[in-house]
Amino acid sequence: MALPTSVVISEEGPREGFQIEKQMIPTEKKVALIDALSDTGLKSIQAVSFVSPNRVPGMADADDVVSRITPRPGIEYSAIWFNEIGLQRALAFRDRLTIVGKLRGYASDAFLKKNLNRTPEEHSAYTLQEIHRYQRLAIPITEASVTAAFGCNFSGDVPVDKVLSEIAAIKALTEEFELPIDSVSLADTMAWATPASIKAVVGAIQDRFPDFGISLHLHDTRGLAVANAYAALEMGIRHFDAAVGGLGGCPFAAHQGAAGNICTEDLVFMCHEMGIETGIDLEALIECGRLAEQVVGHPLPGAVKQGGSLTTLRQSLGR
Amino acid sequence: MALPTSVVISEEGPREGFQIEKQMIPTEKKVALIDALSDTGLKSIQAVSFVSPNRVPGMADADDVVSRITPRPGIEYSAIWFNEIGLQRALAFRDRLTIVGKLRGYASDAFLKKNLNRTPEEHSAYTLQEIHRYQRLAIPITEASVTAAFGCNFSGDVPVDKVLSEIAAIKALTEEFELPIDSVSLADTMAWATPASIKAVVGAIQDRFPDFGISLHLHDTRGLAVANAYAALEMGIRHFDAAVGGLGGCPFAAHQGAAGNICTEDLVFMCHEMGIETGIDLEALIECGRLAEQVVGHPLPGAVKQGGSLTTLRQSLGR
Repeated sequence: MALPTSVVISEEGPREGFQIEKQMIPTEKKVALIDALSDTGLKSIQAVSFVSPNRVPGMADADDVVSRITPRPGIEYSAIWFNEIGLQRALAFRDRLTIVGKLRGYASDAFLKKNLNRTPEEHSAYTLQEIHRYQRLAIPITEASVTAAFGCNFSGDVPVDKVLSEIAAIKALTEEFELPIDSVSLADTMAWATPASIKAVVGAIQDRFPDFGISLHLHDTRGLAVANAYAALEMGIRHFDAAVGGLGGCPFAAHQGAAGNICTEDLVFMCHEMGIETGIDLEALIECGRLAEQVVGHPLPGAVKQGGSLTTLRQSLGR
Repeated sequence: MALPTSVVISEEGPREGFQIEKQMIPTEKKVALIDALSDTGLKSIQAVSFVSPNRVPGMADADDVVSRITPRPGIEYSAIWFNEIGLQRALAFRDRLTIVGKLRGYASDAFLKKNLNRTPEEHSAYTLQEIHRYQRLAIPITEASVTAAFGCNFSGDVPVDKVLSEIAAIKALTEEFELPIDSVSLADTMAWATPASIKAVVGAIQDRFPDFGISLHLHDTRGLAVANAYAALEMGIRHFDAAVGGLGGCPFAAHQGAAGNICTEDLVFMCHEMGIETGIDLEALIECGRLAEQVVGHPLPGAVKQGGSLTTLRQSLGR
């Protein structure tokens, strides 16, 4: 398949990054990074998660962060939440956050238990309650995801059939409740994916659910995130989450080491060099990657912010 | 094309890594790393370069390193050199080093000047002298390479035709002097390659020189090395250079930041997880990656040594 001519990248660095850092990051620094990201051409920025400050101390100031950013027209700022308290906190910012419902499938029961402390049955019941709640509040339910779609540190390899059955369940709910969901996000939450498994899982979904779009949420814990993104591009995938500088990781995923998401600027660099448009100013984004390092106070794994883009090199050579 | 069922990886970490480190690394630490790499299943280890200690101080002890390693049967230990003095130093170790001649093409005249201070004409003349010298010394000339095959920090993008003409020149010499060269190594010396350009250049070479094998020497300066290796695997490439821990980089390549080679253990991890055999014990190699960090005294970019392999995770899960 030919590579796509353009892709859409959703920036999740602020949310992914700040939730995992051990030290407290001043609110104004978080705000500064989000505002800088708003000037790069990104159209979607996930700013915070509204979660319990006891579980995720780094997100205790989420409300403050949202109220202090400077929203730019044309950019969707989003947040995540996992329960009604979180949703209520998000709803206080209906004027500045794009608030939509998301159906969450889990391809690993073990990770569902670890992450949300729910059995599959409890999660199904919760999902139904959540649909009713969203509908009562007139919140459109437009998104769906499958977590741990490529493997799980707590249960091992994930069969493709488990991913397909999670999507089938999402599709059934979509039809039953007439939800405007036309795509699903596959999360490689614990970095088990390889280019080969990306192709296998994406291919199986495209075969079984040809009307469903697919987006990918990739982690780079084992160094394969960019290769996995390339494999996805070869399958025609056009939507990716990414985190500036390679910020991030899930605090409950039992990672031993650096656990960042795919680095936004490295992904953008690869796309641009292959003629794939992103609408993003790579040099401005690289500056954000450097700012992110200052904000968290330690080096981040992204490579292009170290090695430099080829755009500047070509310019310096007069080409 | 189906992915290959096995690949051959040549370890170049000791040579690539020690030439670029600013501080002096004690000889015994270099020897310890090479000896540890000898226990991983690697069949080819490039130990040192015999270059001027004034130009590359980190290689001043190359002779000492070679004399103190413990060669294991079945492993080819190699070295590189760029002039007759270097060759003479290598020849002193004919009992422990595999000494073969290599024809070196440069896809960038600018980098040839920077790296070897030769014009293309001077380099052609030197190559002829070198062939005669090798033949006089009964050193088989079995290897060929094209440096800067995907782009150059000093001249910009490299046309595919320039790579093809370099290989045509190598092939002409191979025929004229009846050299047993049946493959060419393409070096992405300054990390300009993308998965798309890997496919374009490799495809063009496979079309034009179907009898020539191709190996790849990849750098990860801009984060694409593993993706580039995957693209090469998809083109049927079975030979890669790599550097444990992601050691390395070229001291004359004007890199701004971390400039390591593709990390051996990350490449091996990807191959194993996709069912591609390497003959290498990944866990032993990861230990070498950690040892390499101790040897150079700073973190190295490889991811799997941080994130952990899936083999150990599966074992801990009883799978």
